[in-house]
Amino acid sequence: MKKLINAPNSVVDEMMEGYAAAYPQYVRILPQNKRSIVSVNTARPGKVGIVIGGGSGHEPASLGLIGKGLADGVAVGNVFASPPPAPILEVTKEIHGGAGVVYLYGNYAGDCMNFDMAVELAGFEDIRVETVRVTDDVASAASSDQRRGIAGCFLVYKAAGAAANKGLSLDEVVRLASHANDSVRTMGVGLSPCYLPQTGEPSFTLGDDEMEIGLGIHGEPGVMRGPLQTADEVARILFDRIMEDMPMGTGERAAVLVNGLGSTPQMQLFIIYRSIAKLLEERGVQIHRSYVGEYVTSLEMGGCSVSIMKLDDELAELIDEPADCAMFVQV
Amino acid sequence: MKKLINAPNSVVDEMMEGYAAAYPQYVRILPQNKRSIVSVNTARPGKVGIVIGGGSGHEPASLGLIGKGLADGVAVGNVFASPPPAPILEVTKEIHGGAGVVYLYGNYAGDCMNFDMAVELAGFEDIRVETVRVTDDVASAASSDQRRGIAGCFLVYKAAGAAANKGLSLDEVVRLASHANDSVRTMGVGLSPCYLPQTGEPSFTLGDDEMEIGLGIHGEPGVMRGPLQTADEVARILFDRIMEDMPMGTGERAAVLVNGLGSTPQMQLFIIYRSIAKLLEERGVQIHRSYVGEYVTSLEMGGCSVSIMKLDDELAELIDEPADCAMFVQV
Repeated sequence: MKKLINAPNSVVDEMMEGYAAAYPQYVRILPQNKRSIVSVNTARPGKVGIVIGGGSGHEPASLGLIGKGLADGVAVGNVFASPPPAPILEVTKEIHGGAGVVYLYGNYAGDCMNFDMAVELAGFEDIRVETVRVTDDVASAASSDQRRGIAGCFLVYKAAGAAANKGLSLDEVVRLASHANDSVRTMGVGLSPCYLPQTGEPSFTLGDDEMEIGLGIHGEPGVMRGPLQTADEVARILFDRIMEDMPMGTGERAAVLVNGLGSTPQMQLFIIYRSIAKLLEERGVQIHRSYVGEYVTSLEMGGCSVSIMKLDDELAELIDEPADCAMFVQV
Repeated sequence: MKKLINAPNSVVDEMMEGYAAAYPQYVRILPQNKRSIVSVNTARPGKVGIVIGGGSGHEPASLGLIGKGLADGVAVGNVFASPPPAPILEVTKEIHGGAGVVYLYGNYAGDCMNFDMAVELAGFEDIRVETVRVTDDVASAASSDQRRGIAGCFLVYKAAGAAANKGLSLDEVVRLASHANDSVRTMGVGLSPCYLPQTGEPSFTLGDDEMEIGLGIHGEPGVMRGPLQTADEVARILFDRIMEDMPMGTGERAAVLVNGLGSTPQMQLFIIYRSIAKLLEERGVQIHRSYVGEYVTSLEMGGCSVSIMKLDDELAELIDEPADCAMFVQV
């Protein structure tokens, strides 16, 4: 796999340098730790701080999700590897506005360990930190608290970031972030692997005409492998699995995210979105808001995921809050 | 190449249906022509109308570039094929606010022919239409008016859309769009082809360790083929070629766009951006505004392009105008 890089060991630092240079109106890297990046508008006194993070290679997540109504800071790890506690702590100290901090991240063992250590270290600095782990990937475990976090992270970060931006208390932001996480489910389909910059190895292997349902964003095995089907059929498989886990029906409202995993063109994402919209309509579910594009990728992996968040009035209001970040392509 | 589609012949219509269903707050498809899509806020009386268009397969361009400060409507063709005059005319009639209309598109023979026919047809309806063709691709011809339009289209559309949104006259919008086009240069590098949905054929072939400088977004041959080099070296080749054609130096200001062609991860785009920013700094050129991401793609083609727009006060002001569209990933 050809890559436009200088050296495998420098990809993360050079990406961060490029990102900070491109968007000085949004972000700055901390001088004391170059894997720590924060909003230029932080810390806001009295506002609950939102810190997210995880391995890199998922851009625009997490790195790019800094801005108003989203995260105040991000601790960035190596490709597909958790950041250690130091950058997490540095970000926490920098963005802390006196009202406490929430750590939000996908539920992976390495992230849990490192963020938990940072919680402890922040405690020594008298900063109260609470944690909400995102567990939206239906395919990854039967028990919801053991599931991995994938594209649904975006919707949970958005809800929590909006709550913090409204000036709600730490307890309220944590409650709403947990409620957002409880209300979102994601199912993905992988078509082709990504290639790790340092090894050149594919994250998984799959036949020329095969797809794998439920494949993780680091190449973790899915739940079903078989011949590639039509977009409508793939969408139905993903949708049915989500609805089995979180039934929805007439009069309910949803936020829908069709997320590209890296190399799948927008054309295909909109074709999948079209199928999902029809399936929701058949059930009488109203689509309140839609997101189609690359939110949580896995380098150049092929495929997509579908996330559905069941919205009550509280969550609908948070999802509707304006937000702004450099994550996404600027106009 | 595996694709999440239903049938090769339906990809464009299904994409458009999905797009319109996802973003009803931005766009609607015209009932009289399903390849015609317009802003929900058009036609604004007294505002010069902006119509863009071209083949599909370049998403988010052109389809997605509808919104405030951008295009009022888009005529959408088949994959890599110009729209015929009918959808162009339908869009024109729909978005015309009485102050005339500007057609903006990349300079390709098919688009020129079809849009020119639509100009004539619009004349019969007493709608005055002027045309500005984007010719930013330095690699495509020695003479600037014979060049193709690629990612620089975005910057020209942005400038023209901003001018129209400010309420300027048709003559002024045309002058500024031409000035924007004269001020932007793009050079691209291709690493891997895209595969046309209907034939399954690659748009070009390239060795496993090769890159091609100046490759067009429909697979048109470039100007130099050779072994893949580092990001810094690739950036320098692209940058030098742009600067040969449009020299810039101390005290000048630029808008920079690093555009992904489809399957190249953001990580690599930011690494290329970092190199370009350093090269501009070495020349004493100030970066006024940056764009990094997928703007004009070629399905799942690998590689990127670098566009540089030389900004005077007029263009800087237009580039800074707020804009909003569904083109890009929503927050």
